Amino acid sequence: MRNGARQTRAVSGNVMTTFNQKKIEARQKDAMGRIRSDVKILDCTIRDGGAVNNSHFGMETVRAVYDACADAGIDYMEVGYKNSRGAFSPSDFGEWRFCDDETVKRLVGDNKRDVKLAVMMDAGKSDCRASLRKKSDSPIDMIRASAYAGGLSEALDTVKYAADLGYETSVCIMAISTLSEREINKAFEAAAQSDADVVYLMDSFGGLDGHRLRYLLAKCIYVCSDAGKRVGVHIHNNLQLAFANTIDAVITGADIVDCSIAGLGRGAGNCRTELMVGFLRNPRFKLRPVLECAQNAIEPLRRSFDWGFDYPYMATGLLNIHPSHAINYKKSENRGSVADFYESLSED
Amino acid sequence: MRNGARQTRAVSGNVMTTFNQKKIEARQKDAMGRIRSDVKILDCTIRDGGAVNNSHFGMETVRAVYDACADAGIDYMEVGYKNSRGAFSPSDFGEWRFCDDETVKRLVGDNKRDVKLAVMMDAGKSDCRASLRKKSDSPIDMIRASAYAGGLSEALDTVKYAADLGYETSVCIMAISTLSEREINKAFEAAAQSDADVVYLMDSFGGLDGHRLRYLLAKCIYVCSDAGKRVGVHIHNNLQLAFANTIDAVITGADIVDCSIAGLGRGAGNCRTELMVGFLRNPRFKLRPVLECAQNAIEPLRRSFDWGFDYPYMATGLLNIHPSHAINYKKSENRGSVADFYESLSED
Repeated sequence: MRNGARQTRAVSGNVMTTFNQKKIEARQKDAMGRIRSDVKILDCTIRDGGAVNNSHFGMETVRAVYDACADAGIDYMEVGYKNSRGAFSPSDFGEWRFCDDETVKRLVGDNKRDVKLAVMMDAGKSDCRASLRKKSDSPIDMIRASAYAGGLSEALDTVKYAADLGYETSVCIMAISTLSEREINKAFEAAAQSDADVVYLMDSFGGLDGHRLRYLLAKCIYVCSDAGKRVGVHIHNNLQLAFANTIDAVITGADIVDCSIAGLGRGAGNCRTELMVGFLRNPRFKLRPVLECAQNAIEPLRRSFDWGFDYPYMATGLLNIHPSHAINYKKSENRGSVADFYESLSED
Repeated sequence: MRNGARQTRAVSGNVMTTFNQKKIEARQKDAMGRIRSDVKILDCTIRDGGAVNNSHFGMETVRAVYDACADAGIDYMEVGYKNSRGAFSPSDFGEWRFCDDETVKRLVGDNKRDVKLAVMMDAGKSDCRASLRKKSDSPIDMIRASAYAGGLSEALDTVKYAADLGYETSVCIMAISTLSEREINKAFEAAAQSDADVVYLMDSFGGLDGHRLRYLLAKCIYVCSDAGKRVGVHIHNNLQLAFANTIDAVITGADIVDCSIAGLGRGAGNCRTELMVGFLRNPRFKLRPVLECAQNAIEPLRRSFDWGFDYPYMATGLLNIHPSHAINYKKSENRGSVADFYESLSED
């Protein structure tokens, strides 16, 4: 994989508008009528859910998701953030914000099941040199280094460090819906030349429509595929498009897609694992364990905290801005109407 | 319009696989980057919501939706069903199940606003000859005759009767996701040759994915457009695809789309009017009145009855069957798990 990085093609205007239609079409060949059987699922319930509850999950909930993923044939489970205690105080955040190897070993026990484990390391909030041991000493399989476009070089440094230790790696380009064409080109080129195994488009604001997503994904595949990268997507549900856009991504040629059980995740949440498993109709994936986990382990969490589509998240999605505006609005005591909130954001 | 009906082209296998790409592309010309500015919105909040609460809406709720539609620039508001008292007992169903001209006149008052009013007449449950007066004597603008494929001739009889009285007319082909290619061809040909102004694809079961929808819509446009028909879609949210599929329909060339405020409608509900108005970014449409109506008039109804995405509706959507299975499951006292429900349906 990594040896291919030097074959990456440069991105110049003309080339980028034509892409390589043959290559893209070859990835779509299963799309019409048959569902692509090679696509992989990463379940990010506990990691993205950690943005909702400060990663305060009990071990029984994390284990319920772990077992559900293994039983359902899910390929990867992201068990949390591997961020530094300097960035997040352990008195405010649960152990799945740090994902020490010891924590993850307690999850796995003596019986590591057939689902790879991933953690996310945020640029500016994690320290690979302090927190990563050799892969052979760790229960973690994949390091996902995430950053906004401006912090990409730090994320790629994490990727390189983790790859050298033997981990599978992803680089996750956040807030992809907000980037200019120039920023996109630069980010994709840097990702293509990196050590990452997977390049992820993160629709952190839930602001992408299907047309833009397909365009960005096709472009990313064009830039990164000769370098042997796989390409993934992570979509939020601000506009009730998380599932639809994830299907579109599968058909456009994504190799791996993020989903979460019951859609658990920041703000409007994510594409639901149960919808994706149901849709793919791939005998490799089982729906029952996901439905049971959703009903028994995740839905009851709604008594303690709140996620999923709601008007304020729709407002930030339509305006393509960070959901924190909506989260703060929902928490405020003397909030005005949703219409006022939307218009105040529009005028900012 | 109606004079064009005889130019309808016959549907034979070969022709249908090629369509008329030029025509379809011409309808998509606004699609890339610019949002189509000619598409019309029909708000079906009160009509489809009537399937949830037996059409027991108070006049203040119906008027809130009417004013919101007018203020927002919505083109049509469907105020209810115009079904017969023989099919629905007035002791069980509210006045918006029958939409007598007198009822609708009370809504409109002396101040008919700039939004056309539609009613739905179900095949087998309505009687056009008994209930329709001349258009010039009625506050109603459009008659939407709906039927499953098997009842289409009755719906087309209603369409003809209503058209002769001077009404704008739609034929609504229900449960479109369940029809065989032969049934589709037959239904589209009959619709093309009819007096209907609009031919509607109704995804009653919420079982369509975007690919199938685009295919069916392109086919319908091919068959019906030379006859001067407009084409519309009505999508349910069982798979959280209502908004995405409605966007896809707009881009594929639909002339008119159904939406409902807060998604109010049977089972998983409909495409939300607020999402569609927000997405279209057409200065003709205003988001504020829709958001205010959603927050003040429709959301409070959740205290009395239930609609919107839920696992049982997802199950019937994945299995492409009527949501009544899910509605009954949700009402049953001793129901088993969602996984059991899904598997019992799969085995039926």
